[in-house]
Amino acid sequence: MPVNFTPATPDQLLPVAGVTLGVAEAGIKKAERKDLTVIALDEGARVAGVFTKNRFCAAPVLVCKEHLASGQSIRALVVNTGNANAGTGEDGLARTRKTCAELAALLGCEAGQVLPFSTGVIMEPLPVDKIVAGLPACVADLKAENWHNAAQAIMTTDIVHKAISRQVDIGGATVTITGIAKGSGMIHPNMATMLGYVATDAKLGQDLVEAALRHAADRSFNRITVDGDTSTNDSFMLIATGKADMPEITHANSAEFEAFRDALTEVAAHLAQAIVRDGEGATKFITVEVNGGGDGEECAKVAYAIARSPLVKTAFFASDPNLGRIQAAIGYAGIDDLDVSKVQLYLGDVLVSENGGRAASYREEDGQRVMKEPEIRVRVELNRGRASTTVWTCDFSYDYVRINADYRS
Amino acid sequence: MPVNFTPATPDQLLPVAGVTLGVAEAGIKKAERKDLTVIALDEGARVAGVFTKNRFCAAPVLVCKEHLASGQSIRALVVNTGNANAGTGEDGLARTRKTCAELAALLGCEAGQVLPFSTGVIMEPLPVDKIVAGLPACVADLKAENWHNAAQAIMTTDIVHKAISRQVDIGGATVTITGIAKGSGMIHPNMATMLGYVATDAKLGQDLVEAALRHAADRSFNRITVDGDTSTNDSFMLIATGKADMPEITHANSAEFEAFRDALTEVAAHLAQAIVRDGEGATKFITVEVNGGGDGEECAKVAYAIARSPLVKTAFFASDPNLGRIQAAIGYAGIDDLDVSKVQLYLGDVLVSENGGRAASYREEDGQRVMKEPEIRVRVELNRGRASTTVWTCDFSYDYVRINADYRS
Repeated sequence: MPVNFTPATPDQLLPVAGVTLGVAEAGIKKAERKDLTVIALDEGARVAGVFTKNRFCAAPVLVCKEHLASGQSIRALVVNTGNANAGTGEDGLARTRKTCAELAALLGCEAGQVLPFSTGVIMEPLPVDKIVAGLPACVADLKAENWHNAAQAIMTTDIVHKAISRQVDIGGATVTITGIAKGSGMIHPNMATMLGYVATDAKLGQDLVEAALRHAADRSFNRITVDGDTSTNDSFMLIATGKADMPEITHANSAEFEAFRDALTEVAAHLAQAIVRDGEGATKFITVEVNGGGDGEECAKVAYAIARSPLVKTAFFASDPNLGRIQAAIGYAGIDDLDVSKVQLYLGDVLVSENGGRAASYREEDGQRVMKEPEIRVRVELNRGRASTTVWTCDFSYDYVRINADYRS
Repeated sequence: MPVNFTPATPDQLLPVAGVTLGVAEAGIKKAERKDLTVIALDEGARVAGVFTKNRFCAAPVLVCKEHLASGQSIRALVVNTGNANAGTGEDGLARTRKTCAELAALLGCEAGQVLPFSTGVIMEPLPVDKIVAGLPACVADLKAENWHNAAQAIMTTDIVHKAISRQVDIGGATVTITGIAKGSGMIHPNMATMLGYVATDAKLGQDLVEAALRHAADRSFNRITVDGDTSTNDSFMLIATGKADMPEITHANSAEFEAFRDALTEVAAHLAQAIVRDGEGATKFITVEVNGGGDGEECAKVAYAIARSPLVKTAFFASDPNLGRIQAAIGYAGIDDLDVSKVQLYLGDVLVSENGGRAASYREEDGQRVMKEPEIRVRVELNRGRASTTVWTCDFSYDYVRINADYRS
């Protein structure tokens, strides 16, 4: 079960003016489950996205980028689960385009105003006929109160749905931010992993929608790892409908923008952490904080070396304070001129090592106490600069192997 | 059990003139097992080593490098298992130096002529008193026929010992090469908790000993991965005693050098592959061959992305031809300008994907047939250049988690 995570109830998810959602059972992979979602946007919404850097990115990712780049206003997003439409070549692109065209016809807009998303098995043909057949039911279901249903309809191996709403006061106006996400391995090529959708009624210029999205992504979805694999379908979208009763935010240096950006980052971090808490086979939620680096990049190298090490992750699973494994990961992270005699390693609040060796004050029972907790913070002080990075991960259990060895059968 | 691997019997391991070995039970971690090994060298032996690039490298690695750099002739190597003496700071260095000094006193040489090696648990103090107490028994046991015992005495989580002998005719003389290695987890390029010792009676200049070692390491121990972790203690040593009845090889371009180098590479590759076959929890032996790259580095990126992906490795464990996972790994390997429409993926002799999607000729039952084999070859044709790389790895099983969750208990 997910680590310390209670999914949001329908009444906790606030509608966002200018956004309606509809779901349907299209029978894409399994019968009797909602597997198709449409998110419709009123005219004037501004949309930005960040996408996987995998070179084998899926057909819908390519089409999303193309439609966003065209400059046409976006009027709808369509998400199917059960099939990732990745590794499908030209035929996959054609099927994605057909989905967009059919939805556009139903909504009375252009195909280029629709953004497509798919998640599920890779390298199998997208059952586009089933999707097309399911679209009218989605459109008929469109309503502002459907965030909870949408959060459930985009799930794949997720055990729980991930969704959150926040409100923030910006210059006297109450701005709403509601987001949903799916994912259970940050990378799950077979299940093409992570999708995130956040909508707000805040009024922002297009460049600020993009800036806020990048800021939030770099502090949330770009700071998690379950298994170290980068998926073919990862997409994180921000929709700003501009329906709130407020002046448009036009400056990145303004207090208004910072207030919005920080609230958005909080929402995105909640969703990203929810993915780790629901990580495949997870029994522990691990925060890896690296301070004192020369720059953010070297902090990230160290944080990810720890967070993706199978040896470290199995030690967390075993609640074993096998700290040499963490130290070894710091050592091979790729900082060529790292002075290990300056590095300090903390487990929770316990100083574990310094001066290149175990701390004199360290007692095994103190490490053991921290390791038994379901939430563990690893802190590394590099003591060579002022940069910091935090990433989140989970442990590596028998169930990870079971889930991934059994998935297709 | 190891995948398709039968350990060498004592009579298959040939003595190397100028080398004697002795083992003893020092009680370093467990009672009643051989855990201390001394390899003594006649005067005139030439020795070269390659070591882990982990910044938290162990005390013995630092002392080895120092003693090799001093230019003094090496007269002995000492290896303990049960404790890695890594992450132990200044105190660890002092304990390693004491081991060298004590062995030097027994052998009548200088401490700087002894190379120390340790493998086992990280961040615990080396029980140097037990080691010192065990050294006389090692010295009393020194004999040329002890390779088999030494191969067993250096094991940690290894299930089987790894050892091999080869003879090669060089300019009319029969040259013997005998090697042993240990390692099973924390295996990734730049060495792992991997120790390897190869001795030969070939007569080579010091620079050619080093050149042959690097050549062989780059095609063997630097081409394997079990879990992607680079250990703190990896060391691979070549000893050339010069006792063979042959003229000294002095030119890197000579047929004599090439013959020796290739035989050495064969020995090293055998040992390296044995480590993968005995990888923690391994049930499959996987060869990943990447061809048609712009250079060796990008081939290695792709090969390692596949070979260390937990998703790919669990699919191998399940005998599931889940080829999207391999394709995704190719996509995130880090070749920014990779044209995925040119990439071809083979499983054994079966063409799996091309033109960015599944091959028209591919049938699931063909993939299934290959995946059920205990030895599997994955071949990627990048079709963008002429470079090639091969790496070896194993699958990822329940037993990997069990072994690493239980290791310290």
